[in-house]
Amino acid sequence: MNPIVSESHPTQAPPRQSRASEPSSGRCETAILAGPNGIEVPVRRIHLSNGEEPVTVYETSGPQGHDVRRGLPPLRRRWIESRCDVEAVDPAYRGPDVDRIPPEMRRAKVLRGTGRVTQMHYARQGIVTPEMEFVAIREAMDPEFVRSEIARGRAILPANINHPESEPMVIGRNFLVKVNANIGNSAVRSSIDEEVEKLQWAARCGADTVMDLSTGENIHATREWILRNAPVPIGTVPIYQALEKAGGKPEELTFDLFYETLLEQAEQGVDYFTIHSGVLLRYIPLTARRVTGIVSRGGSIMAKWCLAHHRESFLYTRFREICELLSRYDVGISLGDGLRPGSIADANDAAQFAELETLGELTRIAWEYDVQVMIEGPGHIPMHLIKENVDRQMECCHEAPFYTLGPLTTDIAPGYDHITSAIGAAMIGWYGTAMLCYVTPKEHLGLPDKNDVKEGMMAYKIAAHAADLAKGHPGAQARDDALSRARFEFRWEDQFNLSLDPERARAYHDETLPAPAAKTAHFCSMCGPQFCSMKITQDVRKYAAQKGLEEEAALTAGMQEKADEFREKGGEVYS
Amino acid sequence: MNPIVSESHPTQAPPRQSRASEPSSGRCETAILAGPNGIEVPVRRIHLSNGEEPVTVYETSGPQGHDVRRGLPPLRRRWIESRCDVEAVDPAYRGPDVDRIPPEMRRAKVLRGTGRVTQMHYARQGIVTPEMEFVAIREAMDPEFVRSEIARGRAILPANINHPESEPMVIGRNFLVKVNANIGNSAVRSSIDEEVEKLQWAARCGADTVMDLSTGENIHATREWILRNAPVPIGTVPIYQALEKAGGKPEELTFDLFYETLLEQAEQGVDYFTIHSGVLLRYIPLTARRVTGIVSRGGSIMAKWCLAHHRESFLYTRFREICELLSRYDVGISLGDGLRPGSIADANDAAQFAELETLGELTRIAWEYDVQVMIEGPGHIPMHLIKENVDRQMECCHEAPFYTLGPLTTDIAPGYDHITSAIGAAMIGWYGTAMLCYVTPKEHLGLPDKNDVKEGMMAYKIAAHAADLAKGHPGAQARDDALSRARFEFRWEDQFNLSLDPERARAYHDETLPAPAAKTAHFCSMCGPQFCSMKITQDVRKYAAQKGLEEEAALTAGMQEKADEFREKGGEVYS
Repeated sequence: MNPIVSESHPTQAPPRQSRASEPSSGRCETAILAGPNGIEVPVRRIHLSNGEEPVTVYETSGPQGHDVRRGLPPLRRRWIESRCDVEAVDPAYRGPDVDRIPPEMRRAKVLRGTGRVTQMHYARQGIVTPEMEFVAIREAMDPEFVRSEIARGRAILPANINHPESEPMVIGRNFLVKVNANIGNSAVRSSIDEEVEKLQWAARCGADTVMDLSTGENIHATREWILRNAPVPIGTVPIYQALEKAGGKPEELTFDLFYETLLEQAEQGVDYFTIHSGVLLRYIPLTARRVTGIVSRGGSIMAKWCLAHHRESFLYTRFREICELLSRYDVGISLGDGLRPGSIADANDAAQFAELETLGELTRIAWEYDVQVMIEGPGHIPMHLIKENVDRQMECCHEAPFYTLGPLTTDIAPGYDHITSAIGAAMIGWYGTAMLCYVTPKEHLGLPDKNDVKEGMMAYKIAAHAADLAKGHPGAQARDDALSRARFEFRWEDQFNLSLDPERARAYHDETLPAPAAKTAHFCSMCGPQFCSMKITQDVRKYAAQKGLEEEAALTAGMQEKADEFREKGGEVYS
Repeated sequence: MNPIVSESHPTQAPPRQSRASEPSSGRCETAILAGPNGIEVPVRRIHLSNGEEPVTVYETSGPQGHDVRRGLPPLRRRWIESRCDVEAVDPAYRGPDVDRIPPEMRRAKVLRGTGRVTQMHYARQGIVTPEMEFVAIREAMDPEFVRSEIARGRAILPANINHPESEPMVIGRNFLVKVNANIGNSAVRSSIDEEVEKLQWAARCGADTVMDLSTGENIHATREWILRNAPVPIGTVPIYQALEKAGGKPEELTFDLFYETLLEQAEQGVDYFTIHSGVLLRYIPLTARRVTGIVSRGGSIMAKWCLAHHRESFLYTRFREICELLSRYDVGISLGDGLRPGSIADANDAAQFAELETLGELTRIAWEYDVQVMIEGPGHIPMHLIKENVDRQMECCHEAPFYTLGPLTTDIAPGYDHITSAIGAAMIGWYGTAMLCYVTPKEHLGLPDKNDVKEGMMAYKIAAHAADLAKGHPGAQARDDALSRARFEFRWEDQFNLSLDPERARAYHDETLPAPAAKTAHFCSMCGPQFCSMKITQDVRKYAAQKGLEEEAALTAGMQEKADEFREKGGEVYS
């Protein structure tokens, strides 16, 4: 085995600076949860007043304040090396746009497994990797449970050996519901800086993974910048780049072009690939009578290829070769739903469910190679048809994690599809979907900018958390309860700090009551001091507690007498 | 019977001018659906290109361009008069702030029923009123069905005889799901102009009813301005004004003060009152261990009264007198859920469901007086506990319409509670809730401004429509399908015009592709011309159609030959 290329970065994350999403009050800080084997997991700790215990929340934003031209420290490098199953090799492919990659970011060597190096491979051998320990601490779960879920394919831990910068996370329905944010340029709009900024912004807003869907210029260099700065796993859809290589003509695509693209991206460090292997020739006519036909880009590309060649695509026929390659880098497969419905009218139709059966068949094949698999899902579904999607997916795909785009629950609100789809996302998460792909307000209309990324992320963090609550996920409700107690006790700063978006909560409060004193006021702007139900309730409760009045006992405890007392000192309430 | 005060306004709505929410392209217009008996119902008609039939949508915005100092034309006056069961009397109460009401708005006389004048009263006698005909046309339902739903109490048609300006609408689970918007000043912020503007804005955004929750200055005059300009039913919570009259001291409230307030507001024309008659003394201790106690303003006021007097409140003990009064004006009762949960932790608890039983008991009493009733519901509920609320409400309250605030599905996102609650609202609407009370982004933080009203309304129009789709409401999907067809065929202007918010959809599209040519482009900014899946699908479909290839037949029709042809002229696709 060749020696590992050593990096100048420390292998542990440096002390983190304050996050962009944190308030300036200094009441939130990044803390480290230390595991038994030297594993250190960054979390956000929200300090509260009034003697309340701090609330610790999951943190995705990664180390801050680093030089984006150097990228993040390779947290996982030491763990990867210590397994002694990788070799450092010259990259097979450097990209035509290598001059867009700064010298300090370029890597002389990349890693390749000497055999299978997937987390599933280790899990099946009974090994709890540091990556699994990391996610166990992060999720407050037993490491052995993490291992067993990965071993049986019910969870995946995307962790390309060439993306040591990522902080391990797990996708599976027995863990917290995750959110993916899509970024990426297009032929119409393009800038590496902007994409890196969107990546960082998405991670700060809580994105658990980020997909780079670039199809425009400098596709290789853009991806390199993203990977080297990504504290979260990165996914791509390699057929997009392969199509560029084929001159934009789907029918010119070949397995060799595609395979070369997979290799290129695996060497760069992409953690999971969306591959549309389930688009079979015989399913394509099932879409002919749809209102919106085939809306998946990858699906339509492959449908065109299939029609042009009149045979099954290489994504299906040569799926084993693909798995063999990916097992050497630990790139997960996100089996694309190329025939997902693109409108309410097309939901849950024959084409969609036919493809799902094939995705189940492919799942078993990937597992033969220890390749981690998740299954992509729609799209556009009215509420009453959502549950069937999860039930069928679990059955067809042997409980491999489900990863859905929304779904949008109506088609009539372009400009608000983060909301139309957050409704569906929350429900499908409750029913068992492991990761939700966000939708921004620009969906169907344009490319999201940084603000759209934030709006989409907030809607999806809400959906994912609502799903965790509905699933009864252990500990999920602690933050709700802490915030509600703060709300009830008029601890405004605590309420802001516990919010998903403290800045917005504080700004909205400022709009009506900007004075600093209002942040300690025992009433709020909605009702004013006289009409505050929370204030009245507190008085009621205090009174009940003082008098030892509880439940039914209250009624038999000579309440009339106490009522008279209460009236006499009635002035106290609004003093 | 005294002669009816005649008004100078026409009794039919004049031709409407363009709506604020309409695009400037002139492709949307207000049209009139004419019923068999001279009933004319305004609707919005969206004209489409490409030979598509226009899409007709429900319209709430009312006549536009009128002088707000005179108010809207009294559409229903003639219908009310023709029943010969009302008398014109001097108002019992004019308000201390009468000088804030312009002379041209002041009414010398108000109407009072000579007996019961409620829509339920007529419905139970088998009479289909013009109001019922109006809603039947509006909802595309049989008038007799509307009557029967109102007669059995499963739907209400709020229609105070002193609010002839309102366009009849129906609230019931067999009709379209409705949305209420709350407006109103507080002691902290107050302006009549602003409240009238919010009313108009809410109606333009699709509010089906509006609640005036004012607790600040000029409460009578503000309400008069709102009623005279409201094309939708107006609801209030009279205990707020009664409390003002009691000097802000709940324990000083009396039945007489409350009754006087009901009379004052009934004469003004309020269409439904929220009354918290279900807050019983024995239920109050059930809230003592809650995280957020009693969060309903009305509920906390009455709880305080009950504790101070150690007896059941006059809202409960004298409920029959209240019903008797309201039956003379056709003011509906919205039985308030004074003990609704204010946090995830308190959802579905004993206090909440105890009160619900009492609301069911009161429903039967109101129905004895032919008073129309709906039941208010929470609040804050995690997704998995939502359905139980609807099931229990239907059972306890004999299918009287349910009217819920959200519910919020998590507590952690102040600033985004229009989204946390749109998730719950869509679900509870699907399960059978008849009307959704909107929540704005300012919930828990401040008073909503005009922009917040819009954001809240859009989230709730989405929730209500998603619920209609999930319920399979007849015709609900037509707009989705028309928009999806437009999307698929790159008819951008049609897509915008069919949107809930055409301006925003257009503006977002402009951000990436501002050129007018982009509005006819057969691709969009997300993918650019080469990667457009819709474009590829259209080509696939066109090809399949031309070749007579359909479904399984395609595979047996010598596809290889056709595939070769296709390859030869492959250039066509991107030409």
